[in-house]
Amino acid sequence: MIVEVFGKVLRELREANNISQEKLAEYCDLDRTYISLLERGLRQPTISTIFKLAKALNVSPSEMVGKVELQVKE
Amino acid sequence: MIVEVFGKVLRELREANNISQEKLAEYCDLDRTYISLLERGLRQPTISTIFKLAKALNVSPSEMVGKVELQVKE
Repeated sequence: MIVEVFGKVLRELREANNISQEKLAEYCDLDRTYISLLERGLRQPTISTIFKLAKALNVSPSEMVGKVELQVKE
Repeated sequence: MIVEVFGKVLRELREANNISQEKLAEYCDLDRTYISLLERGLRQPTISTIFKLAKALNVSPSEMVGKVELQVKE
């Protein structure tokens, strides 16, 4: 559940930044496949991954987690 | 670095709540050993673990991550 909402938030932020999974992967030094798995809620990001992704997506890590929190509560 | 700061924040919040590692582990359905490893920065928490820990420690997940963020920036 949390992991699926995280995936949804990640995809929304990536699209809002208008970048591809490939570009995001490159910025974060992660695999494109891993970004795809995260967006589909099939992998759990660690706190370090959250910090990397947030930086690349121009939000603070706490903002990113806050977005997940809001959608988990709904 | 991030993982060490997370461990520090976790310990501070646990002490502020005046509960033992054992109690926290019980509340979160995690191992006491795992809490100890997290507090020492030897394990990366996933987003689901952060949500569990935050709930048990009476903060929101985004507040918990915000505390890490502040100390990482310092």
